[in-house]
Amino acid sequence: MARTAGSHSDITGPRVRDAALRLFARDGYAAVSMRRIAGEVGVQAGALYNYTPDKQTLLFDLMRDHMTDLLAALPDHGGDAASALERFVRFHIGFHHDRPDAVFIAYMELRNLEPDNFAVVEALRRRYEDHLEAILRRGADEGAFAVPDTKIATLAVIAMLTGVNTWFRAGGRLRLAEVQDIYWDMVRRSVGGR
Amino acid sequence: MARTAGSHSDITGPRVRDAALRLFARDGYAAVSMRRIAGEVGVQAGALYNYTPDKQTLLFDLMRDHMTDLLAALPDHGGDAASALERFVRFHIGFHHDRPDAVFIAYMELRNLEPDNFAVVEALRRRYEDHLEAILRRGADEGAFAVPDTKIATLAVIAMLTGVNTWFRAGGRLRLAEVQDIYWDMVRRSVGGR
Repeated sequence: MARTAGSHSDITGPRVRDAALRLFARDGYAAVSMRRIAGEVGVQAGALYNYTPDKQTLLFDLMRDHMTDLLAALPDHGGDAASALERFVRFHIGFHHDRPDAVFIAYMELRNLEPDNFAVVEALRRRYEDHLEAILRRGADEGAFAVPDTKIATLAVIAMLTGVNTWFRAGGRLRLAEVQDIYWDMVRRSVGGR
Repeated sequence: MARTAGSHSDITGPRVRDAALRLFARDGYAAVSMRRIAGEVGVQAGALYNYTPDKQTLLFDLMRDHMTDLLAALPDHGGDAASALERFVRFHIGFHHDRPDAVFIAYMELRNLEPDNFAVVEALRRRYEDHLEAILRRGADEGAFAVPDTKIATLAVIAMLTGVNTWFRAGGRLRLAEVQDIYWDMVRRSVGGR
């Protein structure tokens, strides 16, 4: 059966991305060559260029897609602000827990994005922050929350929640659902919610 | 005047550490060679070995010293738990703000420490966490705080506070002291403090 460039790249693409994600997370973008990614996938280095023009594009695609997946998966923020915040907290912990390498890279490799790529990823990140900030502002307007600075509260809550990835291990003392309960309690209190 | 190996290393040591810190933070440990660090300092690669036996030892020294400096600088935790927590919050933000590269490496390069070195750095980190956890437990015992799980609250508070480094820039909308006020308010509320 004839194999077209298209079908080849359809098959190899996800494996290239998985390998790049794993290697970037382990050794850092600067230390990982295209040759090494190809070796991990089990193809010649040249075959990688059917899939991506260069290593920078590969990093950018991984970081951009992580953010667009995150935005696409956001729960509905309707209803009262406290329920919307609770859904956000549980969602953020769950989504990030499932993607430790992508989360690690999203933070660590910002420094290695070229300026135009950085601007795109930064704009997506801003949209995610804006989603949470809108919930906090609505809660403050409704009198449900007491937040002196919604922008800082947004960044503080996101940092607190993303921190779960640095210590939570499945099979440990607590199940993820219990962790979500405890963080929801702390976040709710931190923004003055009842 | 005769130059001894001792005095040479006394002069070069801090410059080697500064260069390594800067390069590790920018490109990651795995991508930075001893030759490159030597080039940044302006000495021959061989001269580095008067100061450190290898790159792993250099990384370990940087990470261990960051933690011992942090522990040595901790404010007194006496008095009531709420005041002790407030001192901790303001201290953590200020200390970390002054050392962005060391803080970035402390998180990012844990993966590159050899097991024995990792154990040492992890034990120091645990001591820092224990300091905060003791304050939270005392506050819970005194009835000043409502904390369902002091261990998790400790990790949540540290993550929230360290997050300031990812966005705060001097000369921006807020002064660091204002940021410390806002975070203290959020942390106090998050642990159920009045």
